[in-house]
Amino acid sequence: MRATTIHGPRDIRFEEVPDPEIKRPTDAIVKVVAGCVCGSDLWPYRGENPIRRGATIGHECVGVVEEVGGEVRDFKPGDFVIVPFCHCDNTCAHCRAGVQSACTNLGVTTSGQGEYALVGQADGSLVATDGVPDAALLPSLLSLSDVMPTGWHAAVSARVREGGTAVVVGDGAVGLCGVLAASVMGAETIVAMSRHEPRQQLAKEFGATHVVASRGREGAQEVKEVLGGIGADAVLECVGTDEAMGTAISVARPGAMVGFVGVPHGIELPVRRMFDRNVGVQGGMAPVRRYLPELLALVQDGRIDPGKVFDLTLPMAEVADAYRAMDERRAIKVMLSSAS
Amino acid sequence: MRATTIHGPRDIRFEEVPDPEIKRPTDAIVKVVAGCVCGSDLWPYRGENPIRRGATIGHECVGVVEEVGGEVRDFKPGDFVIVPFCHCDNTCAHCRAGVQSACTNLGVTTSGQGEYALVGQADGSLVATDGVPDAALLPSLLSLSDVMPTGWHAAVSARVREGGTAVVVGDGAVGLCGVLAASVMGAETIVAMSRHEPRQQLAKEFGATHVVASRGREGAQEVKEVLGGIGADAVLECVGTDEAMGTAISVARPGAMVGFVGVPHGIELPVRRMFDRNVGVQGGMAPVRRYLPELLALVQDGRIDPGKVFDLTLPMAEVADAYRAMDERRAIKVMLSSAS
Repeated sequence: MRATTIHGPRDIRFEEVPDPEIKRPTDAIVKVVAGCVCGSDLWPYRGENPIRRGATIGHECVGVVEEVGGEVRDFKPGDFVIVPFCHCDNTCAHCRAGVQSACTNLGVTTSGQGEYALVGQADGSLVATDGVPDAALLPSLLSLSDVMPTGWHAAVSARVREGGTAVVVGDGAVGLCGVLAASVMGAETIVAMSRHEPRQQLAKEFGATHVVASRGREGAQEVKEVLGGIGADAVLECVGTDEAMGTAISVARPGAMVGFVGVPHGIELPVRRMFDRNVGVQGGMAPVRRYLPELLALVQDGRIDPGKVFDLTLPMAEVADAYRAMDERRAIKVMLSSAS
Repeated sequence: MRATTIHGPRDIRFEEVPDPEIKRPTDAIVKVVAGCVCGSDLWPYRGENPIRRGATIGHECVGVVEEVGGEVRDFKPGDFVIVPFCHCDNTCAHCRAGVQSACTNLGVTTSGQGEYALVGQADGSLVATDGVPDAALLPSLLSLSDVMPTGWHAAVSARVREGGTAVVVGDGAVGLCGVLAASVMGAETIVAMSRHEPRQQLAKEFGATHVVASRGREGAQEVKEVLGGIGADAVLECVGTDEAMGTAISVARPGAMVGFVGVPHGIELPVRRMFDRNVGVQGGMAPVRRYLPELLALVQDGRIDPGKVFDLTLPMAEVADAYRAMDERRAIKVMLSSAS
């Protein structure tokens, strides 16, 4: 099959690689209908994470089941499925506690920007739609493989509550999905920190009541003014840098939680400042499978349209352009559609 | 009056200092009936915190209201009161959110090991008992000024829940109160990490179902074995050192919270390890006034007896011996009784 590979910083190719094969009876192979580029793919793209030369890249996709292993009971070829970026058996102690991203049989999608993806623990991981979905629904369904559940996880980890206030640090696709999550959860005031006009607009569409364009100390000061000098009940840190975390902690009100979902790069948590104000932090990889049924229902009922984060769609073969567009912030998030 | 002062490392004196005076109409002066030494007093005692030569020390006490300012409505001379170590108006936005330790009118007790203590925001801070309590109840009432609410706060911050599992790192008086708190909150399995036989005994009396005497990696391994290899639903970090925090994070199950109440000394939070397992941390100074009504009712109903943490009582004038006994770990916590 053809799939996206990375050969070095800014060296993305769409090329022939070995077809995935069922290795375990719990595996499934999914023919990818649509994939996309994740903000976290930009870390290796920019040379900030180690790269294994020629490795496939891409962990988000939706598609049609092509083949299943002998022990897969709930799925059959032809089913349209959402593929969570992290695979789980959904039965171990960690899954039962709602932390499917720490499953004892954890796996990840490794060729979501390719023609086929191998899914481990298919019965535990996959969620099927009712029949083949309308093309119009495709972007929102695709967002459920990672970006929307990750924004949702930030809101859950930050303990967003009905009638409360929330601040979202980061206006990437995850941050925007965090705004949407906070809105669905009933936060009354939602401050999106964003400098980019198109992203500000989408944040407002997703439920942001205020936008603060400044960053750092100045930005934190403006956010606090919006919140009556008190700080936020819940803060979603959707970047992963030390500056973003610093801002997140400083806009949290005493006793609040910061939910963080950006893979930490150079973060040093200011434990004494946290202690002095009883501000907590929790976050990590989203337990996608936990949130999927609820989020799928919201999408299918038309209550949320997280697919709006895709402001550019390209054929899968033009994946290198997709990376460039996201790297240069010309696109919020790029959807890659399969040829067939 | 006479009060305890600190003049340098291990130089504790009981000597004449100026009487406290009502400075604001919301102040009250309390004649101390009993005070005590806090684990956090040992940081300056050991020279690990800066010292202002000759400053009074001691922030825990109970006593009888001696005098009140013109705006104090709820208390009058003669009332027996518990004095939270942190004073609060109990009306500001932070107090209303249950974070009285971040009150906009925050104050602290500074002569709790003396004959009289000045209390700011008396109406918001103090809680009176029903009449003058029995002498037998005194230790438990005294524990409500700091140590018991602080252990309780660790359990609240760690999200201890009924039927869950909890681990308490630290067998000082706060850790032991944390065990008691987890027990009251209904944790089914409570592992106390303690090397000292008398503290192990008290931990069991307070509700610990298991005791692990080892520390560091070995201790963490033993705790995990007790918990079926899964880790704890909630972890209470009641020390404040980097080693204790490291142990706390490593025994937390994925998705769990570590509640920390020891003033951080040299802690570096391992953000990547936390992210990889979705383990969160939250803690800080306990909002004593928030918990006081509930804890006082538990004490008065005989449901808890946190006063057992006091295994030595000395006259206030022998306070230097009290510090020595705690420093050398000959006593868990020392109560200081006033002369009169």
